[in-house]
Amino acid sequence: MITLASDFGSPYPAAMRGVVCSRTGARIVDVAHDLPRQDVRAGAFWLREVLPYFPPAVHCAVVDPGVGTDRAALVVRAGDHVLVGPDNGLLLPVARELADGGECTVFEWHADDPASSTFHGRDVFAPAAAAVHDADRIEDLDRASPTDDFVDLHLPEPEMGEDGATGEVLVVDDFGNVVTNVPGTVLDGRDRVVVNDESYPVVPSYAHRDPGEALVTVASHGNVELAVNRGRGDEAFGLGVGERVELSW
Amino acid sequence: MITLASDFGSPYPAAMRGVVCSRTGARIVDVAHDLPRQDVRAGAFWLREVLPYFPPAVHCAVVDPGVGTDRAALVVRAGDHVLVGPDNGLLLPVARELADGGECTVFEWHADDPASSTFHGRDVFAPAAAAVHDADRIEDLDRASPTDDFVDLHLPEPEMGEDGATGEVLVVDDFGNVVTNVPGTVLDGRDRVVVNDESYPVVPSYAHRDPGEALVTVASHGNVELAVNRGRGDEAFGLGVGERVELSW
Amino acid sequence: MITLASDFGSPYPAAMRGVVCSRTGARIVDVAHDLPRQDVRAGAFWLREVLPYFPPAVHCAVVDPGVGTDRAALVVRAGDHVLVGPDNGLLLPVARELADGGECTVFEWHADDPASSTFHGRDVFAPAAAAVHDADRIEDLDRASPTDDFVDLHLPEPEMGEDGATGEVLVVDDFGNVVTNVPGTVLDGRDRVVVNDESYPVVPSYAHRDPGEALVTVASHGNVELAVNRGRGDEAFGLGVGERVELSW
Repeated sequence: MITLASDFGSPYPAAMRGVVCSRTGARIVDVAHDLPRQDVRAGAFWLREVLPYFPPAVHCAVVDPGVGTDRAALVVRAGDHVLVGPDNGLLLPVARELADGGECTVFEWHADDPASSTFHGRDVFAPAAAAVHDADRIEDLDRASPTDDFVDLHLPEPEMGEDGATGEVLVVDDFGNVVTNVPGTVLDGRDRVVVNDESYPVVPSYAHRDPGEALVTVASHGNVELAVNRGRGDEAFGLGVGERVELSW
Repeated sequence: MITLASDFGSPYPAAMRGVVCSRTGARIVDVAHDLPRQDVRAGAFWLREVLPYFPPAVHCAVVDPGVGTDRAALVVRAGDHVLVGPDNGLLLPVARELADGGECTVFEWHADDPASSTFHGRDVFAPAAAAVHDADRIEDLDRASPTDDFVDLHLPEPEMGEDGATGEVLVVDDFGNVVTNVPGTVLDGRDRVVVNDESYPVVPSYAHRDPGEALVTVASHGNVELAVNRGRGDEAFGLGVGERVELSW
Repeated sequence: MITLASDFGSPYPAAMRGVVCSRTGARIVDVAHDLPRQDVRAGAFWLREVLPYFPPAVHCAVVDPGVGTDRAALVVRAGDHVLVGPDNGLLLPVARELADGGECTVFEWHADDPASSTFHGRDVFAPAAAAVHDADRIEDLDRASPTDDFVDLHLPEPEMGEDGATGEVLVVDDFGNVVTNVPGTVLDGRDRVVVNDESYPVVPSYAHRDPGEALVTVASHGNVELAVNRGRGDEAFGLGVGERVELSW
């Protein structure tokens, strides 16, 4: 199985599907092609959020503002999974998650001179994913050489205190829910929490508040999420990606 | 075959695809993941519109404003098809259509304690769909118990008269076409019809009018549709979901 | 393999997938369903851009402002590929590309009286694609008759001069990149180029300029593209589809 994820919108991902289908009979499953545009950190978050639900697969993921520069292409073995994408940190948070405490092995991928300088999803990463999928071992491929020299990325950690936590917004999802980097366990046993100086109820899910009312919950990724039942949390809380979130209790 | 439909946008449905792939080798076909958000009635309309074109399959459909409350999970056998989703009426109109006059059998699905209170598409319904797909009979599954106690939903019926019909807007599609609940047969043999006090031509399709001109037609779902050739009917007719449509002739 | 492309948005393409699955076991790959709405020329461009990356397949493509009028349905054999869609020129540019200098054979498809006048993607083209896919030869199908009488379409050619080129905008992609019809080879060896009276740097890719800065590059389709690193070229250059682009050097 090869999964495809990108920030390419449409219809560019169709060319990636075509390239993969031309080179291997592998099953293709699309993850998403509307990852937040050119936002490597947000892409890294979403990949870490969804790829662990897949069975062992080759995951080709491209959020690549440096396309056409000298940034390298990577292949990362992480547990039973393999990740393929640009060397900008995108793949590392999910790789650690998939390796589940084990080692990740990182390879630089030496592509042919690509047909374009602007669409390596089609010209570099999709062919690499097909080659890796059909190989017995990454080590067997001349194009792959182990490397220690790559861009790492760690999603930001919150500061945890006794009376609160200071974190930030990682992403805002399609519903307008504000996803923070604060672990949801801080809400255990609490009825209310103060977010940036205002107090809000802590509830198990959206519908525990009336439509239009703001709430704090533990969302599906396990983090604290700021939301509005049937509305947009980003608007109600006045928060966007990267902004500071102070929780206190 | 397992089909997936939701109002989750992106990238959450990828986690559902991953869960299904991890549990069964079934073919996955996406229906849509941008069903009108948290609008159970609109979701019920679209499912009834598209699922009958599929061969026998397990259809996992989630528009679920009550996620994380005590609303039940349902599995519905309807003809050769099976529907899986929340107990809020979403599945019933299409179930009756798929049963085609036959009986529907409704089961409550007793899930494990789900990992989250906010994403039952991933934690309850996708696993249920995989289990139902791989079982010989729903009755064989301990988690499924027949029930008569579920939320039913009937799409609203128009009032039919001799000189006209009074209905309402069920959905507005991506083109801006206004889909009503009035059966298209009322237009048989008519050249014009009055919609909310203004007269419009009745035509077989959009291009029978000049670009920008409003028209009334029988759309692909068999209902009366209010449209503009290469434009938006919702703007021209000033109508949105749930609003009243009076047709007279 | 059957690929599906349209401007239908969502959820209408699900009905096409269902029809195909009901009639053939062929693998289905979606190309895109958000092709520029009712813009036959833009659709023709995108199909020509992405379908050549696929292995031999039946490609069902529908951008069809004339649905329900007397426009014909076509099946086109082009090299090892087959195209199915409306007779409005949509299929011809990609057919010539797929035929790669060889001959295209065009057939008119005589459908059953379709169920609707407004959704031939479901009622005419998807069934045709399934039938063509499962047939040994198009000639074996009673519904297909060879024809020379069809709407052809050529994407506009630029005027090439010694000191410049005059072209136009074919499409604006999801990133806001302005795709022209001028071949990228005109940029060979140049550092700067004048676009509609203003001078811009020519670079290999977006990140060779600072974020927010405008640039001219050769994009993945091989044409001159006007872009902004991490921004929208259409806004910076003030250009939309069909507008004139004068390049000089």
